[in-house]
Amino acid sequence: MSAVIIDGKKIASEVKSELKIRIGSLKERNIIPQLAAVLVGENPASIQYVRMKTKACAKIGITSKTITLPNSISEKELLSVINDLNKDNDIHGILVQLPLPPHINQLKVNMAVDWAKDVDGFHPANLGRLLLGKPNFIPATPLGILELLNRSGNPPVGKHTVILGRGDLVGRPFSVLVSLKDKKANSTITLCHSATPDISVFTKQGDILICAMGKPESITGGMIKQGAVVIDAGTSAIDDPNSKKGYRIAGDVDFKSAVEVAGYITPVPGGVGPMTIAMVLANTVTAAEKLSGRYNG
Amino acid sequence: MSAVIIDGKKIASEVKSELKIRIGSLKERNIIPQLAAVLVGENPASIQYVRMKTKACAKIGITSKTITLPNSISEKELLSVINDLNKDNDIHGILVQLPLPPHINQLKVNMAVDWAKDVDGFHPANLGRLLLGKPNFIPATPLGILELLNRSGNPPVGKHTVILGRGDLVGRPFSVLVSLKDKKANSTITLCHSATPDISVFTKQGDILICAMGKPESITGGMIKQGAVVIDAGTSAIDDPNSKKGYRIAGDVDFKSAVEVAGYITPVPGGVGPMTIAMVLANTVTAAEKLSGRYNG
Repeated sequence: MSAVIIDGKKIASEVKSELKIRIGSLKERNIIPQLAAVLVGENPASIQYVRMKTKACAKIGITSKTITLPNSISEKELLSVINDLNKDNDIHGILVQLPLPPHINQLKVNMAVDWAKDVDGFHPANLGRLLLGKPNFIPATPLGILELLNRSGNPPVGKHTVILGRGDLVGRPFSVLVSLKDKKANSTITLCHSATPDISVFTKQGDILICAMGKPESITGGMIKQGAVVIDAGTSAIDDPNSKKGYRIAGDVDFKSAVEVAGYITPVPGGVGPMTIAMVLANTVTAAEKLSGRYNG
Repeated sequence: MSAVIIDGKKIASEVKSELKIRIGSLKERNIIPQLAAVLVGENPASIQYVRMKTKACAKIGITSKTITLPNSISEKELLSVINDLNKDNDIHGILVQLPLPPHINQLKVNMAVDWAKDVDGFHPANLGRLLLGKPNFIPATPLGILELLNRSGNPPVGKHTVILGRGDLVGRPFSVLVSLKDKKANSTITLCHSATPDISVFTKQGDILICAMGKPESITGGMIKQGAVVIDAGTSAIDDPNSKKGYRIAGDVDFKSAVEVAGYITPVPGGVGPMTIAMVLANTVTAAEKLSGRYNG
């Protein structure tokens, strides 16, 4: 038997259709949601991610601008750029593309973004509100995974969700999000990481298995519970002589063996990735709604 | 075989001895650490908690003052009291005793406390820093439990820690704390709560079992893994005709049966409670050190 493939692109486009309606309502009130992306340096992956996000904005009617800064920019100068964006009433969302150069303190930068415009959800106060179960902005990838589960007919309520990886961007915030007392969440969770002696003890117990380690194709069918929902948030570049570029993007899951055991599975690409972008858009629309005073937040 | 009893009072007094040395160093620089406790209304338990904390302060050389406010105080007035304490350079730590009356928004109050003086660790920005693995102030009970584990010879590193209860004060922040990449933590975690269909499936797997549900004496020996370390953070008042007061304070663990299965166990009272108070003191000393510029934080 072969698992049902969860189509992240299709679900993301459902989300985007819903956003278009909300953007339409904003425009009737002469509010055009606007995202500012701050890009430091010339990391090709960062350039590509920012381009994907701004392109996705354009498609649904969010204005965006990209502020490109040299790798040599000082922390002080970067903070001043962010401060200007904070003060600009036409900007509703600010995202600072990671990683930042090593001479810049990422925590300081995250804290400099006005948390009412923090559409990445990386400001500690937004993360703290998540921990308190009173979220304001939730980081895009965890939020996208939660939507993916609920919209694919696999709500995590009452299930045992096993999460592999405790990174700031996916594993740890998702573990908090999916265990909140909320009708879309409410899951028992297990969080495994590099200090877990044998992850297969836990992976085999997961009704839902979230892979966010960045260890390409390391989770095989034999490690997965029969019928489990497997979400692969891994994205690693691995050598591939058959590809034109000489590499390909691989998830954490060995798809070939996993698809025979899982009940539902996301592909890489086309699973979590499109949902992450959709949630950046969703957070930007929400920011515009809140900042324009339509909702109290 | 009977479990080793973890003596929270003894370990707390070790912590306090260490704090006295740090307070001595501060006093040599004419800095007297001072805690301000804000007490709203006349909840007997709240009055007792504040008294215990201020008494513990006095014993080790921390000055404290209690600001007692009527239950009828408006949110605005309370925020103004907190703002005055924020601005007072002689105050290093501020704690607002919970619960607050229902007409006051607790999140707003937590956010009003200067997070450099937030010795309870309840400000969302401090909770967010915990989630990021870059903690500033950590809430006292979770921090106390982590110290209790490490100082009793039961470091959680590489172990499976099962946490029962996802409350803001203990279960959820502890689940994050004990799973951080840190030499005192680094545990695989499972977090169970009211939506977990059968917690005994998980309790039986815990090398370390943290009980923070507030369901008196509900965890019995048969639910515990042989030799596990059992930490009981529950405190519920239950009827007891044999007691003078007519009630007694019970933990979440059925001590009689659990002590026969566990390897280590905390009593109630005398386990987690004294550590919580010690950690409020520790956070206050740390705040005084940081605010006086000795350390950069």
